[in-house]
Amino acid sequence: MIILGIDPGYGTIGYGVIEKNGSKITPVDYGVIQTPKDESIATRLAMIYDSLNILIKKYKPDEIAVEELFFNTNITTGIKVAQARGVILLCAVRECGRLYEYTPLMVKQSLTGNGRADKKQVQYMVKMMLKLKTEPRPDDAADALAIAICHANTCGFNQRVLN
Amino acid sequence: MIILGIDPGYGTIGYGVIEKNGSKITPVDYGVIQTPKDESIATRLAMIYDSLNILIKKYKPDEIAVEELFFNTNITTGIKVAQARGVILLCAVRECGRLYEYTPLMVKQSLTGNGRADKKQVQYMVKMMLKLKTEPRPDDAADALAIAICHANTCGFNQRVLN
Repeated sequence: MIILGIDPGYGTIGYGVIEKNGSKITPVDYGVIQTPKDESIATRLAMIYDSLNILIKKYKPDEIAVEELFFNTNITTGIKVAQARGVILLCAVRECGRLYEYTPLMVKQSLTGNGRADKKQVQYMVKMMLKLKTEPRPDDAADALAIAICHANTCGFNQRVLN
Repeated sequence: MIILGIDPGYGTIGYGVIEKNGSKITPVDYGVIQTPKDESIATRLAMIYDSLNILIKKYKPDEIAVEELFFNTNITTGIKVAQARGVILLCAVRECGRLYEYTPLMVKQSLTGNGRADKKQVQYMVKMMLKLKTEPRPDDAADALAIAICHANTCGFNQRVLN
């Protein structure tokens, strides 16, 4: 089974594709989608849709896992990221149909056994679990792989279905 | 020139279509798009996209004006509305291309001369300006007409272009 994990964003969207065979998971691809700062909001949203669409058509994921949003201090950035997440969910449901979401706490819990683990611990576990030589970069791609692994670990249990 | 005004939402999205000929404005259509509460987030986002797409194809607006979001107390609702707004902007830029946004303050200022006018004053002005027999209902449709009128009044000045 192919799983696509997505770390939602507006300027940078992380993605991670893994293959799950029984209890074995292997990395397929990971990276980021980026949108140029000098483009308008609407154009950047269209770019996110199109880039994600290409990724989904290329890897044909059986299931897609997207991280939930939490707002911290910056509401303006939060609105932009939420708008982008809307477009990501639309593309995912149109092109794949099997869509799940996880909170950051669930992702950390699933990978490290500790819902309050820091970024470095999570990245270390991603590297170990996928038998990578180095920790995946950039952070957004590592986060997306962590979301995909979380889904691989928990699918069938605990997940929140979006569609 | 045909102008489509949109009051973004998640459960209820207001729309208002007007025609502008010189300084004259006339109503074409108004109403709401609604999404069922028992459907998933992603399915509701897809419904919003499809319904708006049908409206744009039907009325072929030359320009689309969308209200900006402000968060008040409920961040969870705010995230949902922002996700829906992302889908609305995507559809608008794909299908029309000329996209503008206005703050609630700009809309109130433009219609009543007072940026702090209440909902009833704005609805009264919508009714007067469009020579309607009664105030348009529901509120979301009236708000969307107000956004369209605001754009008709100010286009060429003051507007914030989204694309």
